Amino acid sequence: MKKILVIGASGVIGSAVVHQLQQRHEVIQVGKSSGQYQADITDIAGVRALLQKVGKIDGIVLTAGKLHFGPLQEMTPELFAVGLQDKLMGQVNVVLAAQDYLNDGGSFTLTSGIVGNESILYGANATTVNAAIEGFARAAAIELKRGLRINVVNPSVLQESLEAYGPYFYGFEAVPAQKVALAYSRSVEGAQTGQVYKVW
Amino acid sequence: MKKILVIGASGVIGSAVVHQLQQRHEVIQVGKSSGQYQADITDIAGVRALLQKVGKIDGIVLTAGKLHFGPLQEMTPELFAVGLQDKLMGQVNVVLAAQDYLNDGGSFTLTSGIVGNESILYGANATTVNAAIEGFARAAAIELKRGLRINVVNPSVLQESLEAYGPYFYGFEAVPAQKVALAYSRSVEGAQTGQVYKVW
Ligand SMILES: NC(=O)c1ccc[n+]([C@@H]2O[C@H](COP(=O)([O-])OP(=O)(O)OC[C@H]3O[C@@H](n4cnc5c(N)ncnc54)[C@H](OP(=O)(O)O)[C@@H]3O)[C@@H](O)[C@H]2O)c1
Ligand SMILES: NC(=O)c1ccc[n+]([C@@H]2O[C@H](COP(=O)([O-])OP(=O)(O)OC[C@H]3O[C@@H](n4cnc5c(N)ncnc54)[C@H](OP(=O)(O)O)[C@@H]3O)[C@@H](O)[C@H]2O)c1
Repeated sequence: MKKILVIGASGVIGSAVVHQLQQRHEVIQVGKSSGQYQADITDIAGVRALLQKVGKIDGIVLTAGKLHFGPLQEMTPELFAVGLQDKLMGQVNVVLAAQDYLNDGGSFTLTSGIVGNESILYGANATTVNAAIEGFARAAAIELKRGLRINVVNPSVLQESLEAYGPYFYGFEAVPAQKVALAYSRSVEGAQTGQVYKVW
Repeated sequence: MKKILVIGASGVIGSAVVHQLQQRHEVIQVGKSSGQYQADITDIAGVRALLQKVGKIDGIVLTAGKLHFGPLQEMTPELFAVGLQDKLMGQVNVVLAAQDYLNDGGSFTLTSGIVGNESILYGANATTVNAAIEGFARAAAIELKRGLRINVVNPSVLQESLEAYGPYFYGFEAVPAQKVALAYSRSVEGAQTGQVYKVW
């Protein structure tokens, strides 16, 4: 049994991951305002404070991070910063802060998304950020010490999110949260590193 | 004959690109402190002022942008921001500002680098940023109007830069600037969009 922190635990993806991992592990649920612990991943000091509070852990799953969706013609550096500061730096902050903190052999599992590979209208920030997250994991995988691992789950749009995001994703095959959660389990409970698990 | 702006024109890559394009086009050379015009791409207002000064153009080549190289264990959000603010947002700023400014059918040619694909020690910021730039171009390609095009040149380490960067790149085959410049020519003088031209 491992002790796993899920940041974004109350979300569409996070709650399915919690459900999957809780069957075999101790899962600690974190959110910005929800969960057993609260932390804002965009603030590395807050992440450090969270790690102090929860004590030693074997893995962190990240299912949090905002993107900006909007037309390229109306994009500004400030709108572009939404995804860079929230989804990208949020996830990067957690890895930077927790790399000295996880137990030997522990794992990070980040979240990107199909828009990183398949461009959609209004998706410039999302494609950039998702590609960046996968790049970060590819690079961090060869530098992490003590057998720490890092992978990324790259889901298609979720069936559970179609009502919210559907119009961006006509023609995309939506996947159930339950199936996406399996990819996080593969990362946490497997032994690979530097992988992108596509769920599409 | 096209009118092409090369930002980073004094650099190792930029000067080879200028040499290549000048044979057939009017090339305007821009640098942070060098060149015919000066602009800092990390400041979008400065980019707008530059565009006002140079007038209508047919293409922009970007061969500028700083990255942070250093061990993951010593990385901070501030060090990570170097590549995000300079190389990534510098190039993104130019596209955002100039998309209404280029002549119909004009082109953007951005620069990533082999570290985006092939991780090296100390390269986490570089891999992230280079992957992000390619993601941005992939997405922007489907949203740009008036036949505007956008591509990325992804060079291996340059022979001319081996003295500076060699120790990071043992085992990599270095490429001459002259060969790298051809890829920029393909982007500017060809008709493709959303492409990554690898020079390795
Ligand atoms: N849903 C999809 O179809 C889909 C597809 C592909 C990729 N993704 C990606 O997967 C990730 C999660 O998506 P989702 O739909 O599951 O999200 P969601 O339902 O909106 O849930 C987001 C979760 O993240 C937490 N959170 C938000 N901002 C945070 C912050 N700054 N610090 C810490 N926690 C924060 C929220 O906590 P609180 O509730 O306490 O605020 C919540 O638990 C996103 O990055 C998204 O881009 C989603
Ligand atoms: N060299 C390589 O082996 C190699 C390989 C792969 C990728 N790359 C990438 O290619 C790009 C160029 O590399 P390089 O070696 O040719 O660079 P370089 O020789 O250092 O030249 C940089 C050029 O960019 C300009 N510049 C720097 N910061 C700027 C800013 N904020 N705004 C506007 N202009 C700015 C400089 O102008 P001033 O001189 O006026 O400051 C100079 O003209 C970099 O992004 C690098 O990551 C390089």
